[in-house]
Parts: sequence; C-alpha cells; structure tokens
Amino acid sequence: MSLDKPLVDDVGTEILALAARIFPICRSITGDGVRQTLREVGAHIDLELHEVATGTPVLDWTIPREWNIRDAWIKNARGEKIVDFNRSNLHVMSYSVPVRQRMSLAELKKHIYTLPDQPDLIPYRTSYYAENWAFCMPHRQFEALREETYEVSIDSSLTDGHLTYGEYFHKGETEDEFLLSAHVCHPSLANDNCSGIALLTHLAKRISGLRTRYSYRFLFAPGTIGAITWLARNEDRAHRIKHGLVVSMVGDRGGPTYKKSRRGNAEIDRAMIHSLNHSGLSPVIEDFYPYGYDERQYCSPGFNLPVGLFSRSKFGAIPEYHTSADNLDFIRPEALGESYRLINETIGAIEANATYLNTSPKGEPQLGKRGLYGAIGGDKDAAAANMAMLWILNQSDGTHSLLDIAERAKLPFAVVQRTAKLLSDHGLLKPA
Amino acid sequence: MSLDKPLVDDVGTEILALAARIFPICRSITGDGVRQTLREVGAHIDLELHEVATGTPVLDWTIPREWNIRDAWIKNARGEKIVDFNRSNLHVMSYSVPVRQRMSLAELKKHIYTLPDQPDLIPYRTSYYAENWAFCMPHRQFEALREETYEVSIDSSLTDGHLTYGEYFHKGETEDEFLLSAHVCHPSLANDNCSGIALLTHLAKRISGLRTRYSYRFLFAPGTIGAITWLARNEDRAHRIKHGLVVSMVGDRGGPTYKKSRRGNAEIDRAMIHSLNHSGLSPVIEDFYPYGYDERQYCSPGFNLPVGLFSRSKFGAIPEYHTSADNLDFIRPEALGESYRLINETIGAIEANATYLNTSPKGEPQLGKRGLYGAIGGDKDAAAANMAMLWILNQSDGTHSLLDIAERAKLPFAVVQRTAKLLSDHGLLKPA
Amino acid sequence: MSLDKPLVDDVGTEILALAARIFPICRSITGDGVRQTLREVGAHIDLELHEVATGTPVLDWTIPREWNIRDAWIKNARGEKIVDFNRSNLHVMSYSVPVRQRMSLAELKKHIYTLPDQPDLIPYRTSYYAENWAFCMPHRQFEALREETYEVSIDSSLTDGHLTYGEYFHKGETEDEFLLSAHVCHPSLANDNCSGIALLTHLAKRISGLRTRYSYRFLFAPGTIGAITWLARNEDRAHRIKHGLVVSMVGDRGGPTYKKSRRGNAEIDRAMIHSLNHSGLSPVIEDFYPYGYDERQYCSPGFNLPVGLFSRSKFGAIPEYHTSADNLDFIRPEALGESYRLINETIGAIEANATYLNTSPKGEPQLGKRGLYGAIGGDKDAAAANMAMLWILNQSDGTHSLLDIAERAKLPFAVVQRTAKLLSDHGLLKPA
Repeated sequence: MSLDKPLVDDVGTEILALAARIFPICRSITGDGVRQTLREVGAHIDLELHEVATGTPVLDWTIPREWNIRDAWIKNARGEKIVDFNRSNLHVMSYSVPVRQRMSLAELKKHIYTLPDQPDLIPYRTSYYAENWAFCMPHRQFEALREETYEVSIDSSLTDGHLTYGEYFHKGETEDEFLLSAHVCHPSLANDNCSGIALLTHLAKRISGLRTRYSYRFLFAPGTIGAITWLARNEDRAHRIKHGLVVSMVGDRGGPTYKKSRRGNAEIDRAMIHSLNHSGLSPVIEDFYPYGYDERQYCSPGFNLPVGLFSRSKFGAIPEYHTSADNLDFIRPEALGESYRLINETIGAIEANATYLNTSPKGEPQLGKRGLYGAIGGDKDAAAANMAMLWILNQSDGTHSLLDIAERAKLPFAVVQRTAKLLSDHGLLKPA
Repeated sequence: MSLDKPLVDDVGTEILALAARIFPICRSITGDGVRQTLREVGAHIDLELHEVATGTPVLDWTIPREWNIRDAWIKNARGEKIVDFNRSNLHVMSYSVPVRQRMSLAELKKHIYTLPDQPDLIPYRTSYYAENWAFCMPHRQFEALREETYEVSIDSSLTDGHLTYGEYFHKGETEDEFLLSAHVCHPSLANDNCSGIALLTHLAKRISGLRTRYSYRFLFAPGTIGAITWLARNEDRAHRIKHGLVVSMVGDRGGPTYKKSRRGNAEIDRAMIHSLNHSGLSPVIEDFYPYGYDERQYCSPGFNLPVGLFSRSKFGAIPEYHTSADNLDFIRPEALGESYRLINETIGAIEANATYLNTSPKGEPQLGKRGLYGAIGGDKDAAAANMAMLWILNQSDGTHSLLDIAERAKLPFAVVQRTAKLLSDHGLLKPA
Repeated sequence: MSLDKPLVDDVGTEILALAARIFPICRSITGDGVRQTLREVGAHIDLELHEVATGTPVLDWTIPREWNIRDAWIKNARGEKIVDFNRSNLHVMSYSVPVRQRMSLAELKKHIYTLPDQPDLIPYRTSYYAENWAFCMPHRQFEALREETYEVSIDSSLTDGHLTYGEYFHKGETEDEFLLSAHVCHPSLANDNCSGIALLTHLAKRISGLRTRYSYRFLFAPGTIGAITWLARNEDRAHRIKHGLVVSMVGDRGGPTYKKSRRGNAEIDRAMIHSLNHSGLSPVIEDFYPYGYDERQYCSPGFNLPVGLFSRSKFGAIPEYHTSADNLDFIRPEALGESYRLINETIGAIEANATYLNTSPKGEPQLGKRGLYGAIGGDKDAAAANMAMLWILNQSDGTHSLLDIAERAKLPFAVVQRTAKLLSDHGLLKPA
C-alpha cells in the first residue's frame, strides 16, 4: 500500500467545508436529519445506507420510534417568537414529543433548560428513552422572561419508522478489517461531531483509491444505539476487526487525546500512541474507561474489539462541549488537517507493520560494502537511518515488529519503515 | 455476611477501656501475666486457652522455662526504695533471674539500663534466652545515684511450667480462615500491644455475632515463640489461612502503616491497601521485610502465609517505642476506633470480594429501561454509581474480581460492592 | 574462589604504567602496531597470538589487507616539516595509502581533517574500507597554512598480510566462560583504549593466580573486525560465554557508565549495576543500543551473548573523545584503580552468586542458640548482618539467588555473601 503518497495540502479546508455543509442539519438518533447527513457523505464516497425498523431487537436494546421535527417556537403574549427552532436546532430538546399549548411562565419554566454558568449559550439536551418535551435557551434570556402567557409549539413526530446508518467498505488484500466509526446523531454541534463525520468521509475517499493490506470499514451511525445495531447485525463478523478508531471532536485546537482500547496494548493503541508521541504535539494518552463514545460498545466484554478513541479535546472537558459555542468558528482547518494526518499516519504504520528476520544475524553485516552506511539523505537523516539500520538488524530476530523496533529505538515509524525497505532490498531482511 | 452492619460508634472508647484494664499487668512470653491478660480477653469472647509445657520442641525452638515475678526493688543505704517494681513493671528486665544482694554502685551499674537520649523515660528490656538480671530506670535518676551500698531484690522465679496462648475461633461458611494475631508478651506498654489485644478482642466479639464466608481465627500469643508454637501445633492446618493480619500498635495517631505479606500481592495486601488508599488518611505502605512482629513467622518460607502487619506508627520509628512513654496517654480512642474501622472494612471487602459474569456482555445493557441509570442516591453518588455500573459490566468477564474492578475504577470497594448487588438483583450479573 | 583477597593498593598506578608504555605505538585494525602492543601485554600474561590472513572470510566480512606505516610528513616550500608523524601518529588518517607528491594548498586541503570547534586538537580519523589518504592537524595550524607548494609523504603499505589478535584463557572449574574484551586498534589515544588494554592485562594477571568457578577469556582484538573474526572462529563455542564485559575508556574521571547487554537483565547486567549502585559513585546505567564498541557484535541477534559495556565517560560524549586531548594526562591512576575494583567486585559477585535453601524454613530458626545473633563485627555491621541473615533465611526457598536477595534487601553483595557463608557453616543453608 502507499499511504505515504503525499497528502492533499488543504485537506483541513476540505474537511471543514463538508462539516459546514452538514452543520445546519437537525440530526438525532433517528430521522431525516441522519438521512440528509448521510446523503452529503454519500456525495463523496459510495456509502451503503441501512434502515432498521422500529421495534427491531438489537442486542439488549430495541430500535426506538423515529423522530422528526419540522418547526418549533415559543411566542410571548404579543405573538413574537422569542425562541425559534429555525435559528438553532439546539433550542429543542432532541426527541421532544409534539406540543402546542398556551401556558404561564411558571409552567413553561418546567420545560426549559439553561446553563446558569454559561448564561449566553444554548445547551444541547436529549430525552431519547423518556417521553418529554423541552426547549433550551441562554440563561440570560431565561432570566429576562416576563410573567405573561406564552404559546409553545413543537411540530415533531415520534412514530414507527427506522434507524438509519451508513457504511463504506473498502476491500483490502485480507479480510482483516480496520474500523473507523463516527457518531451522526448530534444536531448543530460542529466539533461533536460534524468534524468526525467530515474527516472520515475524506479519509474514506482517500483510502478508496489505494491498495491496502487491511479492509477498511467506515461506519456513520447514531451514538450508542447505532453502534449496538451494527454490532447486533454483524455479531458473527465483528471478530474480523483487528484495529479500530472512534473519531470524534477532531476540529478544536486541544489535545490530541487518545483513549486506549479496553485491551490497552492493542496494535492500534501502540501505533496511535507512537504517532502522537512523535507528532511534536502534547498528546494526552488515557487508559480505557467505560464511558465516552461508541468505543463503549465495541469494547464491551462480549466483543472486546481493539478500538480506541481519537479526539482533540476530551469530551466533557471543555466549556464549549454540548453547547451552542460548539459552532463552526470552534473548528479549524489546521486542527482538522492535523487530526487527519495523525490518523492517516497511524493507519500507515499499521499497514506497514511487520516482523522481519535479519538474514545475517551473526555479527553486524558489513553495511559499507553494500553502500548502505550513510546511504540516505543529509547528515542528520543519515545518522538516524544508520541507527535505524543497526536497530532493525539487531532486533529482527522474529520477535520484534517494526513498531516494536521504532518504539525501542525512539525513532519515527516512517524512518524505520523506510529503512527496513532498504535493508530488504539489499537482502538483509526477510519476512519472519 | 453483613459486615456493613453499622459499627458501634464508641468502639474506640470500648477498646481503650479494655486496654486500660490490661495495661498494669506484668506480661512476658510466659507466666501468670499472660494468663491474667487472657482472662480479661476471655471476659468478652469465648477464648480457648492453651498451655504448652517447658521443654516442648516447637519447630526449631523449645518452650522455655516459665517466668513469674512478685516484687522487685533497689534500696539505697538508708533503706529507701529508689526503684520499685510496683510503680512500673518496666523497672525489671523481663526474665530477670531472682537476686537478693548488697552491692556497690559500680557493681549495680552493670545491671542497669537507661536511655541517655531520653533521660526521663524507663526503657523496656528483655533477656529471654540468656540468664541475667537487670533494672531499668530513667537516665536522670541513674546519673544522680550516689556512691553507697545498695540492696537489690528481684523476687522472680524461672522454673519449668508452661507457655500460654489464647485462641478464639469463629466458624464461617467455609474452612478457609482469616487469621488475626496479636502479641501478648509486652508488660505495661499501652500501644505495644495492649491496643492490639483490645482491638482484636472487640473485633472478635463483633464477628462472633455475624454469619461469615470465612472462618476467623484470633490468636493472642507471646511474640515469636508464641507464633512459632501455634505454627508447630497447627503445621498441617496452617494452609487454611487465606488471609491474615498481625495487629500491633494500633492506638497512636501515626500512620496508618501497612506492611505487605511476603507474597506482596495477596488479596489481604490488595484489600488493606485499597481501604487505606480510600481512607482519606495518609497511609504508609511498606514492602515486606523479614523483621517486625509475628508476620516474620507466618511469612517464613516454609509457611509463606498471606499475612500482613497493620499498625499506626511503624515499630521502632517513634520515640515512645519500648519506653515508659508508651502509656495510656499515648493511645487515643479515635485512633483505636479508626484502626478498628479500617480493619473491619478490609475484612468486609475480602468477605464480599468475588468474580462475576456480565450476563449481557455484548454491548452495554440498556440500564435506562431497568431504571438503573441514576438509580442510587444523590447526584454525586449517582454519578459514581453509574460509573461503577459501567465498570462492573465492562470488566465482569470472569477474570476480574470486584476488588480488581474497584482498583481499576479508583472507586471505593463499598460502592462497587453495593452496585454489583444492584446489578445482580436485576439479573445483569451472575457468579463467574 | 577468593576474589575477596585484598587488592594491590596501587593497581591504578600499575595500569597507568602499562597504558603509558603502549600509548606511543601506532595501532590500527591490522599491522605491527597491534603486534607490538600485544607483546607488551604478553610481558605480563601468557597471551596467545592469532594471525588471520588477508582475504579470509569472517561472518559477513573479509579480513582486509594489512596496513603498516613507517613515516609521514608534510613539508612546506622551504622544506620544513610542518606535520610530522613522529610527533603524533594521529597526524595520519589510519589506513592511508602511500603517497609522495608535491601539491598546491588547495589540493592539500582536500586531504586534511581538522576540528574547527576544537582548533588546538588533532582529530583521530580512519578509512579502513575506502582507499584514501589524509592528514589530521589542529584547525589553528590549518588556517595559518600559506599559499605555497607543499610536499607530502606517507610511507605506508597496504598489502596482503594478517589481522592479529591476542587471547588469554584462564581455566576455571567449569567450561562456562566469562569474556573480557578490549579493542586494540586505536593509536595514541590513552583512554580509548590504552586504558582498557592495560586494565584487562592486570586483571588477567590477578585472575591467573586464582581458583575460579568460571573460565575467563580475555580478548585483545581490533574493534569490530577483530570481534567478528573471533566470533567467526569460535562460532560453536560462543555459547559458553555466560557473562561478558567490553572494557573501554576506563581511565577518565567521568561516569562510571554501564550499558546493559541486549538481554537487559542478564546476570552480568544485574551484578554490574548492583556493584555500581553500592559504589558510592554516581553511575550512569544505559539500556542496550546497537551502537558502541564490540558489544555490538557479541549482542548481534545470532549470538545474543550477555555482554555489557563498562566505561567511565560515555564514548562520544566528552570533548576529548577521538582527539589528541585523549592523552596520558587525561587518564588517572585513581580512576583506573576504581574501574579495576568495580569490575573485580562484579566478577566476585558473579563467582559467588548461587541459590540456597533454608534448611529450617518453617518459622525463623533460633539464631540466638547458635550464637548467630549479633555475631559479626561492630554494632552497625551486626545490624546489617542480622538483617542479612533474616533476608537470606526468608528468601532462600530455591527461587532467589544471593544477588536477588542483595537487591531485595538493598544490602551490598559482599555482606550477603559473607552472611550466607556463616549460615551455611551453621547448617542453616544448603545449595538449592
């Protein structure tokens, strides 16, 4: 495979453009918002859509009713819309049941969520599995509400229908799979997770043009119930997943953060951590814990798949999290591009990782007579390449992979990979 | 078992009361002082007394002659008692042979121990296995002794007799035993070890009223030779001991200190360290070393029992150690109560520790439909309980005990235990 | 064995004297300089010389042509020798082919090496495997060279001949070998490695007079090609090497530095680190890396011998490295003596290291009745010896060697060794 093919320079800008297109859509765990989002994704890659009917049992869960919303508002006594769904879909709690009613301020307040500590922001709220309705608004506005009669309207529907998810599959040389998964259930939150959807779309587009060792499965599904649905429908094939990443919140300038898979020392864990440690950034590496995004499902004990979570800031740990401040200004093309490159690099390392045997294991082979000493590039590069040669030759006894060697030698994987290629070309390495 | 039954609030005061009763008694490794002490213990629990005759071989040792003492003093030339055993039994070196003699100051000084660095304190000295006699006194008094003729009297006896120890056994559901051991050979030293004797007496009293999984063996025996005697007489049954604690110096305000068993990672080590780390105190955890109290014998390589040492301050590390300053003022009901609770909590954790299987291991089970999300207590508790549920479900694959999970999740064992009960009640956990 | 026999006090002075004798000789990887050096070594020990003919294949390498040099100089236009091989053999790049020629300054400069950052020092350079010639000089002199016609002469020869190395073998009780290896290919560099050659010569002399458990092989060979040659000729016997040290740069005041064998936890690694950690010095311990001296060859994956590198400063890490500043003033008798003692102590620990069984493993044996408590030396020593007794008895269950115990107990190996002897003499220990 040639994941070392130069990357598009402005990939961050392209990812941002797609994120911006899907940002306004009102997504939830079911409904037309998901379908519309997946259509945008499908404009870039050959996405397969799946519709699973309400009531279908999926593992311990059941596909819920489908929720759709057309409009919603609160009018004051003078008939002025003081809250308007069309201005921000965060104003309506996701899965709000329909309502059309006049009520006092006191009654209305029972159905309003605010953030007292962030009085200018609209919170993001959901109530998927308990029937209810609510509006979300800035606390400052909430406090200014006068005692009068209000009229509220939520023109939504909660009916039997389907849960929708999309899958893109790239066939590689083997049936072993690399899973890349993004949740598609949050409405107008840019980082969480328009960023992840857009990044994976562009990554899938790139990989579609490559010959790869692994097969790649891109999953765009609603959080929790979507991953559970996919697992339920692919229970027998899930074991093919040898590496995986959940990709969320990849556009802000924090982190990067990697949360290890439940296994803790899977190849994806080691490769991702290696990439991050050589990135020149200040990565945060976290041990697995059973809270977060869909790695919760992939890493449940009955599956225990080697799937980690890549993000920039850690979910819940920044003030913008699940508020209207998570808007398109909050995500940056440079951060999106950097996230893309880090994931790409990690995939490249896993594609190229292999274990070799030094064919001349007794004493060092004479590199000079083969023109290998100082054979590569400028001075510093030559020194690194020479050390890489010595490390690879010394460690290639059949028990150390290139990734093991890169870690031990504290060298970037790319240098070790390139050097191993050179040694192979000179017959000094063979597959173990 | 229900070790979570509320503890007596003033248990520290009760322990102190018993410690105060036994404090004046002149104990040694044999003799009536031990018997009198065990009678006081026996007033609270159904203690079985053992008498082992002088000369009996016990492992590499032999039961020594029995030592008893009635009186002792030093009189100056005017016949005034300047040292009087009745005022402190520390004045006489333990196992001093009888003597009645006039002598010069120079001669007397050969038989006097003092602490030059702590000139107001009487040291505690013994000479169990080499025949000798001596007095102990404050260095200040020693320095003021005038050149005159002194008369010394030690009215002791060292004759064939018995070594005495007491045992309290509580039958649990299994034959697997939990050993709790205190030395009973030190005279008027409050912390070392009236405190441990009194604490274990009250702990035994409490456990006697409970249904327990493990059987509990409380051993009140003289240091070293007592533990060796018990091991010699129970060589074939010692392997039943699955957990054990030596309990000494539990009444001062230092520590708490836990010294691991020789195994280093036994369940008792992990449970005790877990309790201490969640105690809000500043515990000191020490690796095993072959010096200290009777864990030396239990952890000898031929037995290698999982027995650790719990104390407050570390023996030998405080100025009061083995001096007349280790008196009843030095031990505090709060410290005794806290020690009691920590040991009790550790026992509770070991009683409740078990390994479960998540019955719905594929994906997370839907907690919401079972009313389990946020099911417990106030907000903070609910969050901890939710995390506890997720941790238990994620880790319960048959290879992690509740204690493993508590450690991994950094949650108090009690929370994990309670949550596991809840999940079991909902059919989400079953014994592994 | 009795490596605890008192060491010669002025061994550092003796090592320095030999280093000074061999310092002026112009060594390279072949040639008469090596032979002359080995003759000096042979004046102290019964050294066996090996000559291996040019063209002989050795592992992946081939014995090169033999290089010898008689004289070399650069004359200016007035016929004055401005560079003279007789003043420093560093002036000529090792393996320079013969030349006798007049040339311009511009032409001459293509054949001159200097150190611009250390303008007063002559660098040390080699070109073993690419035919070339060059002079080395202080940068200050180089800059002062005037535009005129120079005459250069290198009266060297590069012809079929032999590679020479020396071996001293001391037969011990077993065929298991301890390898001590020093490179002999550097010309007038005192620390690198006249110091190592001289130290090993005196160590061999000492060991020749001892009865040892291991057999000792001292190898004096040119770097890289010499070690490869020895390995090629002893391929079937190399596995007998159970411990080994490469000894280089042992006379400066830096370090001491120990670089672990590729195995990382070999007995030599643990013993050397133990000695260093108890030396009162500030040792530097390095993990294995595949660059350095001949441990590169011994630790190649096809051999993977347990051979570490002992030096004072780390090669390459000091300004004197490979310059004319590495002269006889740079090495010190105290540092040489200290290096000698550390290596000697490590050898002593490996000779004495063994695993024992406590013959009285149930409970502690009664040390008092055997007169063992406090049996050794003064107060502090007695306490250490008592702790050593308790540690040895506690740990001697057949799975812990004396070195394991010394590490665990944080006691010097010598104390543990002496105490184990005492316990054995009293029948409390037997070989495991």
